Amino acid sequence: MRENRLKELWAEGHPALGGWLGIPSSTSAEMMAHAGFDWLCVDMQHGAIEYQVAVTMLQAISTTDTVPIVRVPWNEPGIIMKMLDAGAYGVIIPMVNSRAEAEAAVAACRYAPDGIRSYGPARAVLYAGPDYFSRANETVLCIPMIETREALANVDEIVGTPGVDVAFIGPSDLSVSLGLPPSTDQDAAEFVSAITSVEAACKRHGVVAGVFAGNATVAGKRIEQGFRLLEVADDGRTMVTGAAAALAQLREPA
Amino acid sequence: MRENRLKELWAEGHPALGGWLGIPSSTSAEMMAHAGFDWLCVDMQHGAIEYQVAVTMLQAISTTDTVPIVRVPWNEPGIIMKMLDAGAYGVIIPMVNSRAEAEAAVAACRYAPDGIRSYGPARAVLYAGPDYFSRANETVLCIPMIETREALANVDEIVGTPGVDVAFIGPSDLSVSLGLPPSTDQDAAEFVSAITSVEAACKRHGVVAGVFAGNATVAGKRIEQGFRLLEVADDGRTMVTGAAAALAQLREPA
Amino acid sequence: MRENRLKELWAEGHPALGGWLGIPSSTSAEMMAHAGFDWLCVDMQHGAIEYQVAVTMLQAISTTDTVPIVRVPWNEPGIIMKMLDAGAYGVIIPMVNSRAEAEAAVAACRYAPDGIRSYGPARAVLYAGPDYFSRANETVLCIPMIETREALANVDEIVGTPGVDVAFIGPSDLSVSLGLPPSTDQDAAEFVSAITSVEAACKRHGVVAGVFAGNATVAGKRIEQGFRLLEVADDGRTMVTGAAAALAQLREPA
Amino acid sequence: MRENRLKELWAEGHPALGGWLGIPSSTSAEMMAHAGFDWLCVDMQHGAIEYQVAVTMLQAISTTDTVPIVRVPWNEPGIIMKMLDAGAYGVIIPMVNSRAEAEAAVAACRYAPDGIRSYGPARAVLYAGPDYFSRANETVLCIPMIETREALANVDEIVGTPGVDVAFIGPSDLSVSLGLPPSTDQDAAEFVSAITSVEAACKRHGVVAGVFAGNATVAGKRIEQGFRLLEVADDGRTMVTGAAAALAQLREPA
Amino acid sequence: MRENRLKELWAEGHPALGGWLGIPSSTSAEMMAHAGFDWLCVDMQHGAIEYQVAVTMLQAISTTDTVPIVRVPWNEPGIIMKMLDAGAYGVIIPMVNSRAEAEAAVAACRYAPDGIRSYGPARAVLYAGPDYFSRANETVLCIPMIETREALANVDEIVGTPGVDVAFIGPSDLSVSLGLPPSTDQDAAEFVSAITSVEAACKRHGVVAGVFAGNATVAGKRIEQGFRLLEVADDGRTMVTGAAAALAQLREPA
Amino acid sequence: MRENRLKELWAEGHPALGGWLGIPSSTSAEMMAHAGFDWLCVDMQHGAIEYQVAVTMLQAISTTDTVPIVRVPWNEPGIIMKMLDAGAYGVIIPMVNSRAEAEAAVAACRYAPDGIRSYGPARAVLYAGPDYFSRANETVLCIPMIETREALANVDEIVGTPGVDVAFIGPSDLSVSLGLPPSTDQDAAEFVSAITSVEAACKRHGVVAGVFAGNATVAGKRIEQGFRLLEVADDGRTMVTGAAAALAQLREPA
Repeated sequence: MRENRLKELWAEGHPALGGWLGIPSSTSAEMMAHAGFDWLCVDMQHGAIEYQVAVTMLQAISTTDTVPIVRVPWNEPGIIMKMLDAGAYGVIIPMVNSRAEAEAAVAACRYAPDGIRSYGPARAVLYAGPDYFSRANETVLCIPMIETREALANVDEIVGTPGVDVAFIGPSDLSVSLGLPPSTDQDAAEFVSAITSVEAACKRHGVVAGVFAGNATVAGKRIEQGFRLLEVADDGRTMVTGAAAALAQLREPA
Repeated sequence: MRENRLKELWAEGHPALGGWLGIPSSTSAEMMAHAGFDWLCVDMQHGAIEYQVAVTMLQAISTTDTVPIVRVPWNEPGIIMKMLDAGAYGVIIPMVNSRAEAEAAVAACRYAPDGIRSYGPARAVLYAGPDYFSRANETVLCIPMIETREALANVDEIVGTPGVDVAFIGPSDLSVSLGLPPSTDQDAAEFVSAITSVEAACKRHGVVAGVFAGNATVAGKRIEQGFRLLEVADDGRTMVTGAAAALAQLREPA
Repeated sequence: MRENRLKELWAEGHPALGGWLGIPSSTSAEMMAHAGFDWLCVDMQHGAIEYQVAVTMLQAISTTDTVPIVRVPWNEPGIIMKMLDAGAYGVIIPMVNSRAEAEAAVAACRYAPDGIRSYGPARAVLYAGPDYFSRANETVLCIPMIETREALANVDEIVGTPGVDVAFIGPSDLSVSLGLPPSTDQDAAEFVSAITSVEAACKRHGVVAGVFAGNATVAGKRIEQGFRLLEVADDGRTMVTGAAAALAQLREPA
Repeated sequence: MRENRLKELWAEGHPALGGWLGIPSSTSAEMMAHAGFDWLCVDMQHGAIEYQVAVTMLQAISTTDTVPIVRVPWNEPGIIMKMLDAGAYGVIIPMVNSRAEAEAAVAACRYAPDGIRSYGPARAVLYAGPDYFSRANETVLCIPMIETREALANVDEIVGTPGVDVAFIGPSDLSVSLGLPPSTDQDAAEFVSAITSVEAACKRHGVVAGVFAGNATVAGKRIEQGFRLLEVADDGRTMVTGAAAALAQLREPA
Repeated sequence: MRENRLKELWAEGHPALGGWLGIPSSTSAEMMAHAGFDWLCVDMQHGAIEYQVAVTMLQAISTTDTVPIVRVPWNEPGIIMKMLDAGAYGVIIPMVNSRAEAEAAVAACRYAPDGIRSYGPARAVLYAGPDYFSRANETVLCIPMIETREALANVDEIVGTPGVDVAFIGPSDLSVSLGLPPSTDQDAAEFVSAITSVEAACKRHGVVAGVFAGNATVAGKRIEQGFRLLEVADDGRTMVTGAAAALAQLREPA
Repeated sequence: MRENRLKELWAEGHPALGGWLGIPSSTSAEMMAHAGFDWLCVDMQHGAIEYQVAVTMLQAISTTDTVPIVRVPWNEPGIIMKMLDAGAYGVIIPMVNSRAEAEAAVAACRYAPDGIRSYGPARAVLYAGPDYFSRANETVLCIPMIETREALANVDEIVGTPGVDVAFIGPSDLSVSLGLPPSTDQDAAEFVSAITSVEAACKRHGVVAGVFAGNATVAGKRIEQGFRLLEVADDGRTMVTGAAAALAQLREPA
């Protein structure tokens, strides 16, 4: 079975730098897959992407060695299993707030006896190899998101759930839940301590800490804090930022 | 009928700064439509875009005041007319090399007696208004591309064809035709003189000079040379360039 | 932030007349958006519409001032949040039968502290404006449907749930639940009293009463009964009815 | 092979009443296929429809006995052959202005020795039956459009071209070509005589006269004039007209 | 209302032989619909198929008399109802492990008073006929899957749930749940007895026994065991197996 | 630049065995790409495939080493160039009947000075590598089809056109043109001699002979005749043949 390169990167002590895809197109996905990221996440929650296009995006990513990750819209077994069947090597699951929710997320990601995943990995076998069934449970990543006050309160129970590979912070939702404006980084003490406390919980439980950084500067800071799965840039924002900069150069000459 | 803002910009002496769309998605198109461009071109020639998606991209652009332009795959009446019916306010037509080809391009863009455009502007009427038929010929732009050695030789005949509104240089194809490597700008004398000779021909014939600049720096230079329709940034390259820069910041710290 | 015109209409004492979209196409959606409705509902429950097409329909509606509403397939947070992120200014939620279900519907529509909506309004920000986060909770409409005997029994608890803006009657389902044949209007006493009792409950709780009228005649009657959010015509039925009338004129001349 | 019911209708002396599809959706196509038309035309010229959706529309029509017709964007063999392979039982070809253009249209519709149609009727065999090859030339209709002044001048040469089954008038384009505003019917003498002269030419050559009527009233008139293939109603206009009428009933009560 | 031919086959004592569709295309669906199966299942669980394409596949199947069945991704009322509205004559529901889950599955398939299905059978009425509402409950099949150890333990409660028409074994998932490698058939005693025990339970409760056979040989064996709803071949595996055989003939000549 | 493995196979004296794709789906394309073919052809002529889906199929093929080939609908520069930009490593062009048509086909496939191909290989660069421009002319295959009596008469002129890499026989069209029923193989003398004469012409001009074989038996025979580019199996027929065989096993037991 094709190895999960993210696990190899972590074993070598490296952070895994990722891109985020919200544009529903296999064309932009393939371009981003050639841009040098270690992994790409097809975002089916806040991205404008539904299953049918997501599959073509996973195919586009599979033309390279970039590791394909999917964020599902919600913690539901149907869509988690569909995306794993489609070849995702990890699933990011929003709004996991309790041990029970974490266990449900894990169960959807694992074949029996570790979970309840239904068998039928039609595309995953093509991507991963014929021994997919026997090695899938140890290869695909289950990545619950920690992004609410409630999740912070339960962080050890969530992160310590057997089968959780990564805990991934959604900083905007975390901000909102804490009564702050949505942001990928801010100085508010409660926000700062939340970030560090999740990372510390991950360390306690031998789980990788991940985070949506939003840009390279924040990503660099988070790497120093111990995070090892980092969203660095998304497709749409990167495009629009670059476009606006080009226009500004012409419209406001120095 | 909704005015063509590009004509207004030119009447006020301003260049029209545009974006280029090669990603087949109404989501990326709408993002770019909010980025501040005067116009956007849905590129059906080298972009990965066919009619059905192109229509949704034109709809997305129409949620803003950005002027919708389309580059068709080839100088063929069927697709030119389809895109005008879909609400394009201008059509860029590749590889127009002679007076006859320029006349064919114009004919496809104009209702009788100025051309042979077939009547049925289903979406164009929604976008432009109920008086579309009576004012379309004077509103939509016919934009042949000058991008071969042969076109350079016939530039006055092409640019002087009644109904041509803009002559648009494709610098990469022009380079290739001149025996140079493809590039949006280069120092080779033949390339430089080609650029200026097309602009001069436009001036002689009272036609707007346009060009695919590729970036803001070249666009600024072309504006100084007299060009008034300028591609400044495309969707995919802008995205990938920004993504690569973010990764480089993390991977090669100073 | 762009105002919700439905709230303005109600503040001015006007009913809001709407169209219903079941055809999965941004083309028909854009045509209907130009037909003069105050609002249009993209019906993802009984319409033949899934997320990816729904987004293009919302874009098409956004080329006009028509207010975009979505009916989701079921009372599930994942899809409710996705459609709000896509720019819906209101979400109609089927089969809300209890206080708990109404609270779940509201929670999915509101950012903390009023709910659990996850942050990432990618398209909504483009449609509504950069201050979307701070004003979304007060702008987007949460519209549970009252359409079962059980919901009738719990109508005050449902309608009185904080955050419910409109209670929307599904008359066909209501009929079926009452043991009657499905219909948008009928004389059966139980049906008639159900309609008036929901409207009365809305009045008690300061909530707008809405209903699927099916045609203009029933809509007129419902307006007189106090309803202020009215479905008047859908895309497919209107089309087929008109087509059949045209054929009848030719096949059965008087 | 499945018979072409239009030929049967004509043999029985009946006009064939048709609907026109411009909305790119198999859902609206299937609804219209159940509305009672003798035939439906998937309009790839002025409708917002490209090949991939057109195929699903032909499938939707094939769930009924309604005869599937396609209008191609232009008189080009590639697309004519693709639509016949997809199961169209007739192809309407725009802007046929001369004998040579009519012969090219016919050639694209017929297998050798009558034409140059390439063999590969993948879907047509499913729709029509295993003997498709041997009977296709006599079954599928070649329908050039007469819609310009030039075509009027050449009407006998066009209509008399062997293999032409129907001559179909595009009244809006014909109007424009004659210097009149686009309309499906008008009193201008030149328009009126054009209509009758085409019908007369058809009669002379034993060819069916067809026309885009736009509504039932004009269709009735054209039937009296001798036309036998009549567009009676299209999808979008019928829908919007009905919707506007419903709104008018509520907004402007008598 | 159009009869459900599967019920007729069973009444006549015949097994119903089916095909399985995992390729998201109305083209392959229509080809398979002409291949001679009694029924086809659009697999939205392990197939690469989401709602929007599934509808076009159901339309394609409806060009023939093949009975359209859908497997939904999970036991959720929203998607079950959507697929019935789209004209499915039966719904296969994965992982039904208890009486409560079976009752929920049935409820989603039935109008009141037998269930909670919401009314709006837009496409189903076109496919089935105008009396759909009054006869749907007795016509469409509710088909829970028995595919876990837990379901085996509860088989009588599940199979005996009023409204269950067929119990369908998923042999691969059943194998995995029993600690065996996934397979459609194997000799392990626990597997063999599971198959026969489910069939026996069906017989006790007057319910049809169904199974995913995977190939004709296993299907023949299952028919002898008493099964009457049999998956015989799927689209992708059949295609790839045939392709590999063709290549083997050329690459390894005897 | 990524090498064209077909050229390598031929250099090593091997025939190149290919599959044919007519189902418009990246899912079936990816399955076939894993089935062991040397190349796959996305058939945009008789397959039910248009540009937008074709691109996703090319991406799916690119997840493997299978060489991506495209058959375009017609000998038109717009679509030939679009498919090369999309990463096709060869283009099969139907109905090339003369030297002029062969030259036009070649010109569309080659950058200046060898042709008129327009520069903009957006996806091709991702697939092939950054030096695509400098090596494309020698890498991508121009493959005109010989499939009419006229082409047979001009075979030396066509095959000898500089830039033609392969001459590909369409045996069904060739049969029809010769007055025979369409078939991939038959005993009629004129058919047999046509096959051998094309192969002989290829040999004379140092061009590879290719053919649509239809099955492995005919492919084996053609290999013995000297053909080196062989279609062996298509997606739909292989699927349906296998499905019918499975059904026959159950319905007609020996």
